[in-house]
Amino acid sequence: MSLIEQEMSRERWIDIPEEVLEKLRIWRPAPLYRASRLERFLGTPAHIYFKHEGFSPAGSHKPNTAVAQAYYNKAAGIKRLTTETGAGQWGCALAFAGGQFGIDVKVYMVRVSYDQKPYRKMLMQTWGAACVASPSPDTAAGREFLSHDAQHPGTLGIAISEAVEDAVTSKDTRYSLGSVLNHVLMHQTIVGLEAQKQMARTGDYPDVVIACVGGGSNFGGLAFPYLRDKIYDKDIRVIACEPASCPTLTKGPYVYDFGDTAGKTPLLAMYSLGHAFMPAPIHAGGLRYHGMAPLVSKLLADGLIEARAYPQSQTFGAGLTFARTEGFVPAPETNHAIACVIEEANRAREEGKERVILMNFSGHGLIDLGAYDAFLSGNLEDTALEDEDVQRLLRDLENFPRP
Amino acid sequence: MSLIEQEMSRERWIDIPEEVLEKLRIWRPAPLYRASRLERFLGTPAHIYFKHEGFSPAGSHKPNTAVAQAYYNKAAGIKRLTTETGAGQWGCALAFAGGQFGIDVKVYMVRVSYDQKPYRKMLMQTWGAACVASPSPDTAAGREFLSHDAQHPGTLGIAISEAVEDAVTSKDTRYSLGSVLNHVLMHQTIVGLEAQKQMARTGDYPDVVIACVGGGSNFGGLAFPYLRDKIYDKDIRVIACEPASCPTLTKGPYVYDFGDTAGKTPLLAMYSLGHAFMPAPIHAGGLRYHGMAPLVSKLLADGLIEARAYPQSQTFGAGLTFARTEGFVPAPETNHAIACVIEEANRAREEGKERVILMNFSGHGLIDLGAYDAFLSGNLEDTALEDEDVQRLLRDLENFPRP
Repeated sequence: MSLIEQEMSRERWIDIPEEVLEKLRIWRPAPLYRASRLERFLGTPAHIYFKHEGFSPAGSHKPNTAVAQAYYNKAAGIKRLTTETGAGQWGCALAFAGGQFGIDVKVYMVRVSYDQKPYRKMLMQTWGAACVASPSPDTAAGREFLSHDAQHPGTLGIAISEAVEDAVTSKDTRYSLGSVLNHVLMHQTIVGLEAQKQMARTGDYPDVVIACVGGGSNFGGLAFPYLRDKIYDKDIRVIACEPASCPTLTKGPYVYDFGDTAGKTPLLAMYSLGHAFMPAPIHAGGLRYHGMAPLVSKLLADGLIEARAYPQSQTFGAGLTFARTEGFVPAPETNHAIACVIEEANRAREEGKERVILMNFSGHGLIDLGAYDAFLSGNLEDTALEDEDVQRLLRDLENFPRP
Repeated sequence: MSLIEQEMSRERWIDIPEEVLEKLRIWRPAPLYRASRLERFLGTPAHIYFKHEGFSPAGSHKPNTAVAQAYYNKAAGIKRLTTETGAGQWGCALAFAGGQFGIDVKVYMVRVSYDQKPYRKMLMQTWGAACVASPSPDTAAGREFLSHDAQHPGTLGIAISEAVEDAVTSKDTRYSLGSVLNHVLMHQTIVGLEAQKQMARTGDYPDVVIACVGGGSNFGGLAFPYLRDKIYDKDIRVIACEPASCPTLTKGPYVYDFGDTAGKTPLLAMYSLGHAFMPAPIHAGGLRYHGMAPLVSKLLADGLIEARAYPQSQTFGAGLTFARTEGFVPAPETNHAIACVIEEANRAREEGKERVILMNFSGHGLIDLGAYDAFLSGNLEDTALEDEDVQRLLRDLENFPRP
C-alpha cells in the first residue's frame, strides 16, 4: 500500500526510511568518476563524468528500488515476493534485497536467458532466492505454455503472467516490478541527487546528461533531478539511449498501451512498439522492452529530453573502448550510454568546445562477458528494426487511444 | 631491474610512483566495512571489519601489484609481459594493468581452468590481452607436453615453464609473477597501510588480523603493516588461512624448495609440501600452491603469525553466510578468511569478550558462481590431505636443505 501511495503521490519529496538507507549504505554513495583516460584517448576537450552504479552487490542500479520495495513489503507483513526477470539483473537485485530483509523471493526467469546466463540464476540462489525457468510447471499459465511446447523458450510477457499468478494465488505474497512505474523511478532518483552533490565538488556542471533506457529506471534515476534544474534555470540536454533493435522512443508512437504482453495491466500512456512486439535477442536484455516508463515518455512528448538509438555492434565497440581506458567492464545496457558519450565527446572535439558530459554507468558486465567474447570473435549480430517492421507495428496500435 | 632492486632492498620505505598511484586511484582507497549484519547474525560481541579489495576492475587485490609491475616494465622499455595463471585472477589483473600502460600481455592459463572458467579468459581478452590454454603449441615446452597428450589438462608448473620460455626467447619481453616474491608482497602493503588509517577513524584497533594464503600476497598486504605494530607495541594475533587440501603452513616443513614444479627457480626458504605436490582441484584456485612466500614463511617460523587450515565445505558455508548477511559474494579464496572470522567471532561470543577482528576481503566471487552452485547442490567435495600423504611428501623433501 505504501508503494501504491508513492505511485500516485503528488508530494515533491518523499523521505527514504532509515531502514532502507542502512542497506543502501552497503554501496552508497556510489562514486562519481571523471573518465580522464577516456577523454585522453578520444582527444576531446569534453569533461566526461560517470556515476558508477556497478558497486552494488548485485552489480547494477537495480537494488536502489529492490531494497525499498522489500522494506515496504516487509513493513506491511508480506512474507514473499514474486517477480520476473529477463537477463537477470532485476531478479538478482530482488534476491539480494529479499535476503537483507528476510523475505522469500521467487523469480521467474525467461528460459532462454536461464539457460544462456546460468551465473545470474546461481547468484540469486546464493542469496537464498528461488529461481525457475519460465514457462514453469509451477503455475497454470506456465503449464499451459509447456503443454504446447515442452521446450518453450519463454518471453518476458509469460514470465510476468507467471509471477503475477503466483502472487495472486499465494498467501502473504506480492508481485514486484523493477522498472517502468513511478515509484520505481522515484527510488532511483537517489542516483541523480547524489550526482548533483558530487558534481558540485568538481566545479563542473553537466551540459549533457546521458543514460540508457529499457523500462526507464536508470535513466529516470539520473535525469529527473537534473530535469528539475533544466525547467528552472539550466541549459542542459538530456539524452536517452536505446537499442536500434528496440527503438521505442525513436520510432514508437505515444499511445495508451498495455505494460505486459498478455494485456493484463491497465493501459499506460507511453511510447510503445506494441505490447506484442518481440525484440531481437540482443545481449542488452534489460533494454528489450516494448514500452517505456510513462514519466520518461511524457518528458519526450514535452520535448524536455532527446532519444537516440544505437546498433548493438556500435555499443560493444564503445564498451570495449571504455573497458580498455577506464578499466571497468560495462554491462551491455550501459554500452548504449557510452556510445552516446563518445559521440558527444567527438562532437565537442570537432567543434573545439569544452563540454561537460555526465553518464550513468548503470552496471558492470562481469556476468555478461560472453557478449564481449561474441563481439571480439565477430559473432555479434546487428538487428536494427526496419522501417517496414515499424509500419506494421504502428498499424497494430492504430486503434489504441492517444494521450 | 627496478623490481629486482625492490626484491633485494633493505630500505624501510619505498614510495609509490605518481604514475602508479594514478591507476590505483581507479578503485583506491578500497573501502573498509564494518560487518554489522554478520555480527548480528552471529550474535557476537566482536566488531568485525573487512577491507574490500573486490572493487578493482579485475575484482581482487591482484591489480595492486600488476599495475606497479606494468609501470616499472614500461619505464624500462619493456613492450610485452608474459605470465601464467591458474584460476585466472592474476591473469586478469595483469591484462588490466598491461592495458592501462599500453604493454602487450600474454597469459598462459592452465587448460583445465581455461575450459572450466571461460569468463576469466574473456575478461583478459576484453582488456586486449592474449590468453591461451597451457600446454599450448606456442612454446617448445608446451609442444613437448602436447606431443604426449593432445588433451593435456595442464598444471601451474607447465604454464610457468611456457611463460618463462616465451619471455626469454622473445624481444623486449619479461616474465611477471603475481605472488610469493618480496616486491609483490610489498606492493600489496597498500592494503594494510590504508586499513590502518581507516581503522584509526573507527576508534577500534584490531585484536585479530585475518587473511587467506596461497602464495601469500593478500595476507602479506594486510598483515605486514600490522606486524610492525605487533613487534613494537601491540598485542595482536595474525592468522593465515589455507585450504585443508593444500596445508602448506599447517603441515609442510620449513625447507629450501623450488618455487616452480619443474625446479627451474632458485631455492626459496619456505614452508612447502614439495614442488611436485599436486593439490586437489578445489575452487579456490588461487590457494593451490605447494609453497609459501619466504617472508610469510619466516614470520610463521619466528612465531609471529598463526596458521589454520579449513576444508572446502566449511569455507563455502562461511561464504554463503557472508553473502546472505553482508550482501557481497566473496571469492572462494576469501571464504577461507571468512571461515576463520566466524570461528573467532563465535569464540568471542562464548567467552563474552569484545574483540576487534579485521579481515581482508581479497576479491569477489561473481566469476566463481559455479562453485557456489556446486556447494548449494551438494556437489562440493572435501579433499583434506591425509597424514599419510603428508608423510610421503615429507620424505620427498628429506634431502632438501633447511633454513
